[in-house]
Amino acid sequence: MTRFDVLVQVMPRDTLLDPQGQAVGQALTALGFAGIGDVRVGKAVTFQLDRPDEDAAKRDARAMCERLLANPVTEAFTVVVEGAT
Amino acid sequence: MTRFDVLVQVMPRDTLLDPQGQAVGQALTALGFAGIGDVRVGKAVTFQLDRPDEDAAKRDARAMCERLLANPVTEAFTVVVEGAT
Repeated sequence: MTRFDVLVQVMPRDTLLDPQGQAVGQALTALGFAGIGDVRVGKAVTFQLDRPDEDAAKRDARAMCERLLANPVTEAFTVVVEGAT
Repeated sequence: MTRFDVLVQVMPRDTLLDPQGQAVGQALTALGFAGIGDVRVGKAVTFQLDRPDEDAAKRDARAMCERLLANPVTEAFTVVVEGAT
């Protein structure tokens, strides 16, 4: 078994409005930051995973996204698995 | 002006408990996933930023984290700026 570091990023799908992102964009503009566009707010989930190899870690991390971490109707996810520690 | 893609990741600091992460870890275990450790849940914020160069984009993105996107007492952030589109 090897211990892998997994980073999952779950974002609202591009085709959906993101009211939270819009609110953050307006707040940043109100603070004086200019030139900001298309703010979107999602989740970042990190964890460690003991698996025999990187493919198994990636496969299980994707399964976790599909079953719990992301809502496939409204959210898209990316999985990054980083090597052995 | 160049348009940069910015990704900000805001996570609870390592020294703090993360009850949301613990709950997610327990839920994943209950679903049958084994070998999971140290689950932490944070925010991912993406946006576009018009700045003259990458240094300016990175500097302003960090300022946004310090002023709005992260709570420096409880959260740590990372900023990734990706090149011109």
